[in-house]
Amino acid sequence: MTRIARRMADIQPFHVMEILKRAHALAAEGRDIIHLEVGEPDFPSPAPIVEAGRRFLTSGHVHYTPALGLTALREAIARFYHDRFGADVAPERIIVTPGASGALMLALGVLTDPGDEWLLPDPGYPSNRHLVRSFEGKPVALPVDATTRFQPTPAHVAAAWTPNTRGLMVASPANPTGTLLELDEIVALRDTVAARGGVLIVDEIYQGLNYGVEASTALSRADDVFVVNSFSKYFGMTGWRLGWMVVPEGYVRDIEKLAQHFFISPSTPAQHAALAAFEPGTLEILEARRHAFADRRNALLPALREIGFRFATEPQGAFYLYADISDIAASSEELAQRLIEEAGVATTPGVDFGDNAPERHLRIAYTTDEARLVEAAERIRRVL
Amino acid sequence: MTRIARRMADIQPFHVMEILKRAHALAAEGRDIIHLEVGEPDFPSPAPIVEAGRRFLTSGHVHYTPALGLTALREAIARFYHDRFGADVAPERIIVTPGASGALMLALGVLTDPGDEWLLPDPGYPSNRHLVRSFEGKPVALPVDATTRFQPTPAHVAAAWTPNTRGLMVASPANPTGTLLELDEIVALRDTVAARGGVLIVDEIYQGLNYGVEASTALSRADDVFVVNSFSKYFGMTGWRLGWMVVPEGYVRDIEKLAQHFFISPSTPAQHAALAAFEPGTLEILEARRHAFADRRNALLPALREIGFRFATEPQGAFYLYADISDIAASSEELAQRLIEEAGVATTPGVDFGDNAPERHLRIAYTTDEARLVEAAERIRRVL
Repeated sequence: MTRIARRMADIQPFHVMEILKRAHALAAEGRDIIHLEVGEPDFPSPAPIVEAGRRFLTSGHVHYTPALGLTALREAIARFYHDRFGADVAPERIIVTPGASGALMLALGVLTDPGDEWLLPDPGYPSNRHLVRSFEGKPVALPVDATTRFQPTPAHVAAAWTPNTRGLMVASPANPTGTLLELDEIVALRDTVAARGGVLIVDEIYQGLNYGVEASTALSRADDVFVVNSFSKYFGMTGWRLGWMVVPEGYVRDIEKLAQHFFISPSTPAQHAALAAFEPGTLEILEARRHAFADRRNALLPALREIGFRFATEPQGAFYLYADISDIAASSEELAQRLIEEAGVATTPGVDFGDNAPERHLRIAYTTDEARLVEAAERIRRVL
Repeated sequence: MTRIARRMADIQPFHVMEILKRAHALAAEGRDIIHLEVGEPDFPSPAPIVEAGRRFLTSGHVHYTPALGLTALREAIARFYHDRFGADVAPERIIVTPGASGALMLALGVLTDPGDEWLLPDPGYPSNRHLVRSFEGKPVALPVDATTRFQPTPAHVAAAWTPNTRGLMVASPANPTGTLLELDEIVALRDTVAARGGVLIVDEIYQGLNYGVEASTALSRADDVFVVNSFSKYFGMTGWRLGWMVVPEGYVRDIEKLAQHFFISPSTPAQHAALAAFEPGTLEILEARRHAFADRRNALLPALREIGFRFATEPQGAFYLYADISDIAASSEELAQRLIEEAGVATTPGVDFGDNAPERHLRIAYTTDEARLVEAAERIRRVL
């Protein structure tokens, strides 16, 4: 009698979960596992954020907030855009959401008619195509490779555009490749999309996790794009489930309607905790962590290159390396299996990020401290 | 250039927000407003829950959990079903979600193909029809009235069923009417739905808020239904955004896939706090609150009847009275306006709950202490 909706046939699980299960099983047997598959910072939430959350809880009055979030938090985010990026964003255009996932659901829910096509760079964050499919849209892969730093160009977009295309999603810094788009490139993509009557969604979820290059926002150059952001990555608040989105003014009212029914409101303790996210003391902690991530990247990248992993493009953001493993193995899934079994090192095979040569790629996250990263590289070297 | 998806034309906001805005404006002018429109308990989250949340936060390690929730919490919910209702529910069938809203999204996302019809009692919780519409399903209203305690019967369901019907959603206790379904009635509805190859979703979000009658669960009589529940209402955790759902075994894997993409995981602090929800000390607090709600209902109901509000059916659950106002006014929207302006009493007009004689009904929530409820009734009496 089980009758599953058709969309579910197209919606894939996170394949890395199988690696993770195996890692847990091996750990239960007493094996020491190094986790290079995890898509979240290993650091705890910064103390001022935790303290703000604990302080808020003291009263016990944990009630609903407005569907679009606390006014004070929307204003704090607006100030952050001004102070950090010189971008003027009206608080009314800022939608606080249950994680960036919630933001993506609202954006796609309010924009996507059945059959609408969304252009998505491949490789890319896997949930994007599944969320498009969830609202009966059609995800269309834009295969990108190292020749364009795994980022789409106006030429890619123009070639793939059809009368049914609704828009383009890009990410900077990107998951799984860690590459950035320059603001001029974003503007060029926006122009290409806008000229065709479409919408550009810019994922800035890893904003602030930049190495050797300044963080930026599309909002300093465009107010007709959707910008998705998160307290999870740079701000170290994954488990709190809080993100935000900046939308063009004309969409706010409809997004509010949808947010009421999808979520009622974002987590209240998380919102109060996040009020401390932009304080100078918190930002100081976060900048120190950014330097630690940079050091990790600088230690891991050459070590992996020496083993035979190839990186045609220098990743400058997030906490991911997207390695070409074709000099080492024929299949990234088999390699990931071998690394977990023989080296006790967990990684994410390319299959989680799309259909564009996934067997040739492995995502390696540097969300573990530097000593462990060095040890992981050494263990991998021995196995290979 | 704003291009909104077609579904948004069918998705309504919570109309009560307009009343709420007016209430805030009047309060800002110094007026004393009594809130009988609020759909959440006025009580703080119980101290043991808050304490568990604060304790968990101490370490700062607020990371993602599995998409279906902490194993310990799923097991605690299973024990609760056993201890309180004598129902055996495997923890593997329990899905922890970001509020009951999240549970409803997962259920409808995994069950609804475009064009699928869902039968929804009218009046009913407004988000249900908008969530059906969000996944391109078609909400079909089942008009119900006081003659069946505002609950659908097998005859209603049989008469409305078409080849496109996917299933039926019911709620017990129900919002906005506060009425219950007996287990025999739920089984009869399940049989009617199952005989036609459909699915029954039972909303037990207000479970435990029962007056003069024992709380129950559909799960003690059926394991082929979807049961949605929440930590918001009985457990007093609205702002934490945490709920759960029990699903037939064959749906778990697909729901897990969808949960990964929709939410990544439910709020981690909320899950750790909720581990304290089933402790004896917490349940003692909650039972005392249940008695307070019963006292409020017993004070408010006769006072409103005396003024001319009619209640053809005795509400036995949740914290709502759904009043027939046709002896007092021609339009519940006009009456709600008048009550907020002249009496300083905020209520929710029927329009928020469907198209079935909304102008004749007003929802009155007793989420305010007894003295204020008595004062509200007195103020209303004076105005009318």
